[in-house]
Amino acid sequence: MILMILTTQCLTNVIKKRPTNSHKGTFGRVLLIGGSLQYGGAILLATKAAVRAGAGLVTCATDLINRTALNTTLPEAMFINYLDFSALKQQLSQADVVVIGPGLGLSAEAFNIFKITCQQINSQATLVIDGSALTFVAQAPSCLQTCATQKIILTPHLKEWERITNLSLNQQSIINNQKAQQKLSATVVLKGATTTIYYLDGHTATINIGGPYMATGGTGDTLTGIIAAFLAQFKEPNPKEVLAAAVFLHSYIPQQLSQHNYVVLPSEISNHLPNIMQKFSS
Amino acid sequence: MILMILTTQCLTNVIKKRPTNSHKGTFGRVLLIGGSLQYGGAILLATKAAVRAGAGLVTCATDLINRTALNTTLPEAMFINYLDFSALKQQLSQADVVVIGPGLGLSAEAFNIFKITCQQINSQATLVIDGSALTFVAQAPSCLQTCATQKIILTPHLKEWERITNLSLNQQSIINNQKAQQKLSATVVLKGATTTIYYLDGHTATINIGGPYMATGGTGDTLTGIIAAFLAQFKEPNPKEVLAAAVFLHSYIPQQLSQHNYVVLPSEISNHLPNIMQKFSS
Amino acid sequence: MILMILTTQCLTNVIKKRPTNSHKGTFGRVLLIGGSLQYGGAILLATKAAVRAGAGLVTCATDLINRTALNTTLPEAMFINYLDFSALKQQLSQADVVVIGPGLGLSAEAFNIFKITCQQINSQATLVIDGSALTFVAQAPSCLQTCATQKIILTPHLKEWERITNLSLNQQSIINNQKAQQKLSATVVLKGATTTIYYLDGHTATINIGGPYMATGGTGDTLTGIIAAFLAQFKEPNPKEVLAAAVFLHSYIPQQLSQHNYVVLPSEISNHLPNIMQKFSS
Amino acid sequence: MILMILTTQCLTNVIKKRPTNSHKGTFGRVLLIGGSLQYGGAILLATKAAVRAGAGLVTCATDLINRTALNTTLPEAMFINYLDFSALKQQLSQADVVVIGPGLGLSAEAFNIFKITCQQINSQATLVIDGSALTFVAQAPSCLQTCATQKIILTPHLKEWERITNLSLNQQSIINNQKAQQKLSATVVLKGATTTIYYLDGHTATINIGGPYMATGGTGDTLTGIIAAFLAQFKEPNPKEVLAAAVFLHSYIPQQLSQHNYVVLPSEISNHLPNIMQKFSS
Repeated sequence: MILMILTTQCLTNVIKKRPTNSHKGTFGRVLLIGGSLQYGGAILLATKAAVRAGAGLVTCATDLINRTALNTTLPEAMFINYLDFSALKQQLSQADVVVIGPGLGLSAEAFNIFKITCQQINSQATLVIDGSALTFVAQAPSCLQTCATQKIILTPHLKEWERITNLSLNQQSIINNQKAQQKLSATVVLKGATTTIYYLDGHTATINIGGPYMATGGTGDTLTGIIAAFLAQFKEPNPKEVLAAAVFLHSYIPQQLSQHNYVVLPSEISNHLPNIMQKFSS
Repeated sequence: MILMILTTQCLTNVIKKRPTNSHKGTFGRVLLIGGSLQYGGAILLATKAAVRAGAGLVTCATDLINRTALNTTLPEAMFINYLDFSALKQQLSQADVVVIGPGLGLSAEAFNIFKITCQQINSQATLVIDGSALTFVAQAPSCLQTCATQKIILTPHLKEWERITNLSLNQQSIINNQKAQQKLSATVVLKGATTTIYYLDGHTATINIGGPYMATGGTGDTLTGIIAAFLAQFKEPNPKEVLAAAVFLHSYIPQQLSQHNYVVLPSEISNHLPNIMQKFSS
Repeated sequence: MILMILTTQCLTNVIKKRPTNSHKGTFGRVLLIGGSLQYGGAILLATKAAVRAGAGLVTCATDLINRTALNTTLPEAMFINYLDFSALKQQLSQADVVVIGPGLGLSAEAFNIFKITCQQINSQATLVIDGSALTFVAQAPSCLQTCATQKIILTPHLKEWERITNLSLNQQSIINNQKAQQKLSATVVLKGATTTIYYLDGHTATINIGGPYMATGGTGDTLTGIIAAFLAQFKEPNPKEVLAAAVFLHSYIPQQLSQHNYVVLPSEISNHLPNIMQKFSS
Repeated sequence: MILMILTTQCLTNVIKKRPTNSHKGTFGRVLLIGGSLQYGGAILLATKAAVRAGAGLVTCATDLINRTALNTTLPEAMFINYLDFSALKQQLSQADVVVIGPGLGLSAEAFNIFKITCQQINSQATLVIDGSALTFVAQAPSCLQTCATQKIILTPHLKEWERITNLSLNQQSIINNQKAQQKLSATVVLKGATTTIYYLDGHTATINIGGPYMATGGTGDTLTGIIAAFLAQFKEPNPKEVLAAAVFLHSYIPQQLSQHNYVVLPSEISNHLPNIMQKFSS
């Protein structure tokens, strides 16, 4: 196992000057699925992060009840009703990266959407599983095994990881985590006081910046949006480094903002994405 | 009776650097209940203050009609329909601090919600009663006596205090106020040109900063949100000082802003919370 | 006839430091009525101006369809459905200043609301008539004569003034305007390249600041909100000077902003109200 | 063929100081038509650009479902339901510039709105055709030929141009593009890594500023709004130069912002319109 500690170098490696002969298609299609009655804000936070981190085209698949809030705050994003399965399947076949889970909730309807997503996603696409959808992974691990894509990223916090792996907080050593992760055949971004990425090839990368000013509802949703936008737009040097850069940036921005803010709200992280990304663009 | 005059020292005593090994659960669950057809903005102001003052998880229980405005302005907050009593009771059993009243209105439905709140709140939780809910206290004082928690804070302005105590404005001396407050067995934050906190132990604390630039609709709603977030996240040195710091901060921020603003809108107070809290963090 | 040319002195005369022993009631109740399906934004602009110019309590009476946009952008304002005539009458009996017209439209329903307003307004209140409601004045001048209050201010632009008075643009000399205004027994704020106020006592005041960077939809709506907030909160030196200061400020702010903006949007004028008012506060 | 390369001089030529004796009518009426369930944000972006680029009066004709988002973000704009054909026809008869297409979608309903627009537009007005409406041009080119106005501007990107002309990307040389454009009897703004305007008189103008920081969904919608506002308000020196200035400005602003932003969102372009326009005003 190779353990990497990430530094800002990972940003410079990934955030390259965009090629001149490019268009919005060049920077990828991101589809984000989530947002129930109770947790509508979560999918908005994830979508905002995807838009502001530079994805070419962003579609938010959510409940119709969230549409006005989406268009009001993010006119750049497109909308589909996640209960319109025909539209959902079409989007799933086209997207480069799919996020499922932010604010999705645990209803039977939500589980159905989760299953459709696993079955219908384009085999070349990356699937990022977060929030409520991680509970579905715990309940129905077979969904991962039969998923149409093999590029799967889970972004649990420690409690969600416990639900998936039955590893209690005490048992969550790097060795145990890795064993569990390898059994899942998925990349895992395990969020805690430090965040560790467990890659499919057995490597790990640790982000030990960030801090408790990030400990507020919605921070994880923002992470999924940044990951999605990075994987959609950056093809080099490789998906492992691109993922690492996204996770690092998501902690780096609040670390900077925390000099002047006791708590850093997730929507503020997204506000600063275009500016901070430019600083590390090379 | 010990009469304290508060200074910025009270902020430094309370706003401590967050512990490294913490997560959003560490900083508490706040539930805010209110927002009728006519006064939907009030609960939004209170919720905004709670989110921006650093509560870990914030849920707004309000009329379905307020959901889009909530998600649009505060994607970090969660929503429940306050008429979904099953969801409401579940939230009441989990919250560390419950605010009831901002924009709740005086309908029979509102009174019912108030009663359910008093009955179903977790016995370890603090209940902050504001706005319309103070009228229910005046009408049905027995609700307080049979309330499931004994940690009750009332935040009346002088007229609301008159309604609860039958003390006319002229009769509202510190002595009389305290007698009435002790009979209620609740902490009272009495808002006027100066604001005085009457504690259960007979002490009082006075905030004599702030001023008439705060005299605009919604300022009190913002106060409840700050109080809730402070009590949810700060366990030290003790609830009395934490409450005092919240009330002080709510006047300190507009005092600073009033140098450049003839009137300081309550949403502006909330905008500056993370920054000003950081200045006093120690 | 005394013709005054206004300068910033009019602001200093009116925008006095607020008395310490004051509360939101001290700064008045403003009720703004308008906002049809087509022109919902107009009443939002007027309400925003009233809130940000420092009115103590602001209620927006509009179509239910406008409620979410109101609460999202202006949580400080209260809402009533203008078709709930019982609520409307109650508000009319309590308000210190009533604005009717921004975006009201010309439907039969709108005319009905206009008539109710004229009949039910508190006799001590000031009625500001703008936008579509000026067309109703042209169509049914008797509404003014039988209005429950005698404190009436009309804020027409030149075309609307033509409709009311049958004075063609060429005929709109100061003398002719004043004759027509005196017959209406109302104060008239006649908006053009320069704006002139025609007072009941035969005096006039002219604002010759401002400019074509203000020539964009919604600027007039913002004016009504500023006028309402000023009349509600400032009782001195007299209503004539208070009105003049409001009209002057509404042109002064965009004049300042026009140094860096080719066009000054009405919502931007309101954004700067608290700051500019503080600069002239004495 | 005369090929012009545009510089900031084109801005100075067009953005003239506004005449003192002007009012909102002087700066034109813009009508923007679009916004389906899936693409509601597109018409909001276009409308925002039109408002902030200085059009006198802006109306957005869209689905009722978009009304709250419109009023919340742009109270300066007016709304009509684009399925209210009577209102739509009235607006079409009055507008100086009509934009059709941003987020309109490809439904039968949308096609019907497109046909009505072509038939009912004022013969003096300019019609800007963008987004989905360009697909209708490809499917039913006769709509252009029988259009009530001859002032037609198409704003395709390369793929949309392919659909209209059957010219594959490789075949899209300036000569071939111009032949196809002349056959359409419309001005064409062809958006690519560089953007070229093909005028009716056989001239072309090329904008080779801007860059891949603009490659994000919604950028084209913003362009249509700026074009519309420019044509509505600037009558000199001539429509060709006015169009060129609008297209140039739409790339110039993100070029400036890209110094500090890795990606420039279309709503950010609009935010800076009043300020940048003032810089080039002469």
